[in-house]
Amino acid sequence: MQKKQLHILKIGGNIVNDAELLAAELKAFSGLQGRKILVHGGGKKASAVCSSMGIVPKMVAGRRITDAPTLEVVTMVYAGLINKKIVAQLQALNCDAIGLSGADGNCIQAKKRSVTTIDYGFAGDIISINKNLVNSLLAQNIGLVFCSITHNQNGQLLNTNADTIATQLAIALADVYEVHLQFQFGQKGVLEDVHNEQSYLPQLSKSQYVHLKKAGIIFQGMIPKLDNAFEAKQAGVQQIRIAATEIV
Amino acid sequence: MQKKQLHILKIGGNIVNDAELLAAELKAFSGLQGRKILVHGGGKKASAVCSSMGIVPKMVAGRRITDAPTLEVVTMVYAGLINKKIVAQLQALNCDAIGLSGADGNCIQAKKRSVTTIDYGFAGDIISINKNLVNSLLAQNIGLVFCSITHNQNGQLLNTNADTIATQLAIALADVYEVHLQFQFGQKGVLEDVHNEQSYLPQLSKSQYVHLKKAGIIFQGMIPKLDNAFEAKQAGVQQIRIAATEIV
Repeated sequence: MQKKQLHILKIGGNIVNDAELLAAELKAFSGLQGRKILVHGGGKKASAVCSSMGIVPKMVAGRRITDAPTLEVVTMVYAGLINKKIVAQLQALNCDAIGLSGADGNCIQAKKRSVTTIDYGFAGDIISINKNLVNSLLAQNIGLVFCSITHNQNGQLLNTNADTIATQLAIALADVYEVHLQFQFGQKGVLEDVHNEQSYLPQLSKSQYVHLKKAGIIFQGMIPKLDNAFEAKQAGVQQIRIAATEIV
Repeated sequence: MQKKQLHILKIGGNIVNDAELLAAELKAFSGLQGRKILVHGGGKKASAVCSSMGIVPKMVAGRRITDAPTLEVVTMVYAGLINKKIVAQLQALNCDAIGLSGADGNCIQAKKRSVTTIDYGFAGDIISINKNLVNSLLAQNIGLVFCSITHNQNGQLLNTNADTIATQLAIALADVYEVHLQFQFGQKGVLEDVHNEQSYLPQLSKSQYVHLKKAGIIFQGMIPKLDNAFEAKQAGVQQIRIAATEIV
């Protein structure tokens, strides 16, 4: 039997921050035929709310350290403000949608990241995806909108990387669906020259990636994104795109 | 055919504010057999967040005036922080649950309240309940946890009274279910003497209510709560309790 298509679209913080970019992505998402999942990042709002509440955002190597007050803020901003604004905008586009955290329907269970050299605080690494529930909601033709908050099934909410959520959803659902996983982050694609938007690669293979990473041409935030993408490829996700760059 | 039971439990802000009271109510809710919906109020957290963000809470006659910055905060606090904490706590009690705003699955559509003598800002009055979706989720044995945020299906989120949400859900579902509607708010029941918790009425009829209201014995916040309760009674909701006071 041919598998049904499932589109998974991850939109990054740069898109969430920009009302015009966000509206364009939501319009595109609402126009996708068939089953679909949107995963959104956080954007600057959490830092702004932290700062106005006197909480100093702590970052190490580009990752937020989630102490208890920061967890409260990201839960408010990601699961509350951004998630519900996106759902309301999709409804206005006649795209029925439900916003979810990993706690809802136990969709995404995670565990608190172990402390090694860095204590990431309430950061969660995904353990399992509740495929049955995700499937049953998708089967009702409802778009699912995931924020990057998960839980440990013991009452603790956790902050989880949104790229990883999109990737793990894609991998978990790849045996049931022909999954098309798309990462949008406000750039044209994976760039050969970070100062030139036109230098994006139409395609990127694993060996090219290893080469470009070694050469320092691919660096920083693009590395975990591409690690996620190649993990999805390896696990049988049908199509993966980093904006216009296709992972081959 | 006998109707299935549906429990709808509304927990007020005083319960949300108190970790111990909240844990007790969630334990009771998780133990309810069959289909169930929890509706939660906001509590003090929204005012605290407003205040720490320099937004001065505006109240008129016990109701919050929802200007644009306040709407952002209540969306964060109600749909984000409180809703997801409750869902995570229910999951820890092995009670599967999904947290919802009215925008999710277009569950509760509202319209912005008209400006008369008071401009309530982004306050929403309920127009319709999406019974099909609510039913299909309940049928999967998932508890639904509603916060008091709705939408107008045109992209605008709205702040809606949580008692009214519980009541309108009860009324909408009363033709399908034998609905048991319970309001918990941190008091023993409807009191004859506001200074004496033991003076709660075991039962309250409409004529008694009219009498006690006229006599000034029932006043302030209890009036809209009881108006909701008697509206539900009138509309065929099977059982309605204000804490230990049964509406007859």
